[in-house]
Amino acid sequence: MVIECVPNLSEGRRTEVIDRLVEAVQRVPGARLLDRSSDTAHNRSVLTMAGEPAALKAAVLALFEIAVDAIDLRSHAGEHPRLGAVDVVPFIPIEGATMNQCVQLANETGAEVARRFQVPVYLYEEAATNPGRKNLADIRRGQFEGLAAKMAQPEWAPDYGPPAPHPSAGATVIGARMPLIAYNINLATDRLDVAKKIAATVRFSSGGLPHVKAMGVALEDRGIVQVSMNLTNYLETPMFVVFDAVKREADRHGVAVLESEIVGLVPAAALVSAAEHYLQLNSFDRGQILEDKLRRT
Amino acid sequence: MVIECVPNLSEGRRTEVIDRLVEAVQRVPGARLLDRSSDTAHNRSVLTMAGEPAALKAAVLALFEIAVDAIDLRSHAGEHPRLGAVDVVPFIPIEGATMNQCVQLANETGAEVARRFQVPVYLYEEAATNPGRKNLADIRRGQFEGLAAKMAQPEWAPDYGPPAPHPSAGATVIGARMPLIAYNINLATDRLDVAKKIAATVRFSSGGLPHVKAMGVALEDRGIVQVSMNLTNYLETPMFVVFDAVKREADRHGVAVLESEIVGLVPAAALVSAAEHYLQLNSFDRGQILEDKLRRT
Repeated sequence: MVIECVPNLSEGRRTEVIDRLVEAVQRVPGARLLDRSSDTAHNRSVLTMAGEPAALKAAVLALFEIAVDAIDLRSHAGEHPRLGAVDVVPFIPIEGATMNQCVQLANETGAEVARRFQVPVYLYEEAATNPGRKNLADIRRGQFEGLAAKMAQPEWAPDYGPPAPHPSAGATVIGARMPLIAYNINLATDRLDVAKKIAATVRFSSGGLPHVKAMGVALEDRGIVQVSMNLTNYLETPMFVVFDAVKREADRHGVAVLESEIVGLVPAAALVSAAEHYLQLNSFDRGQILEDKLRRT
Repeated sequence: MVIECVPNLSEGRRTEVIDRLVEAVQRVPGARLLDRSSDTAHNRSVLTMAGEPAALKAAVLALFEIAVDAIDLRSHAGEHPRLGAVDVVPFIPIEGATMNQCVQLANETGAEVARRFQVPVYLYEEAATNPGRKNLADIRRGQFEGLAAKMAQPEWAPDYGPPAPHPSAGATVIGARMPLIAYNINLATDRLDVAKKIAATVRFSSGGLPHVKAMGVALEDRGIVQVSMNLTNYLETPMFVVFDAVKREADRHGVAVLESEIVGLVPAAALVSAAEHYLQLNSFDRGQILEDKLRRT
């Protein structure tokens, strides 16, 4: 079973602290660190790790051990919104793992974090206990500075832990979600209005496709525009549905699709489903993929 | 490194012999048996195994050890053409292996087979030493019964081993080839003439696409027709090129493509390249596939 976990930590400047966080993960057997990146403007680091539930839970607890001690939100400044020293911890099902298992892992990890570190924990996305906590932005609104007042409201009682912020480490948002695909479609035009109109048509928040966030941006150095998107559930809204929708809208405006691009990682299944769609492979079984068969045998 | 090897053996009826062949492979450490199938009408068995070169070579030699002893072509009858007890042994690059490595493995295995069992070996497909030996059908023409006369011709001297057939085990064809994709496209019509015309247009032998074999067949129980194909090099002639060609020809005849189907296994890369094509992913790097990244890290 492979689950991915992408902790976001409120430290992107002090390399000695970041290195201690990274080393803490590397010391946990079975927790594989796939990527690390730190942003000094955001004053934030993102670690990408993968493994089985027990290893990931141990790795997250090891991060708290260091972060609660070394990161003080009272003196933290950065461009990115944040609520706690360990700010957000999503668990993501990759191979042989269900969303339910990730929700359970979020709960077990959250309960243990609250117990050991007295940090309040909010559960978000698929692990959310009510609809108002599904979106990270809603939980994080007001940030660390507004957290004490927010938590004084009964509806913002945490899912685990004390009913008030940890003095220096704030609160943590832990949850389960689908892998996210950063997907951009470039248009053979410099008309930013067209990219913005298409983005408005396809994004869910203005009446478009579920699980699609989109904005129109200019790529000024190339003299073209882009519909820049995040696909937050490629099973329910596949890439090919998004591509076809953008292409159809571009047609309407007399604009051609130049190319599309995936930024970062993409689950193999998202590409396979596009092949199934366009090749009309109506009775294809993923068990027919040679490499998968090799791995299962 | 993963190479696939698919030995074809001239025994499909005596289960005790087939079981001994299968057990011989299973005793070789590192040779994973993925599939076995026997056909009594063909009197032939096909084993699918995967592993590193040394394990596959050992497994093929273990098969010869039993087959040369237990299979006598002088009393073998079946519908399928055959030349030897171990009839054909293709090596197929799957992961982290090149075609050159498979050609080398075919040579090393062929030399050892000839040395230990005095069975003459012909190298075919990518391992062929001249163009007349590239196609299996050319080497196998005349079958076991015509082999002595064929080998008396200087141009049919074997690549390894004695210049005459092994008395009971005949000769063996060993080589290296790309994974083969069995790919069918069903048409929403019962007009067999249309399927036959499209097959003739797309297959290489009548002037169509390289690495495509095709025929038109009727699926009488469903009242439709099918363009039934083998794609012998999906890198040089990708599935989407074949699909688009068949669809375009079907359009010409006023016939719709109902669906397509893959029979058996397909390399993931063949599906990924279809996704890249239709989604216009012009700068996609296979390293962006999440599962591959997980496996490499």
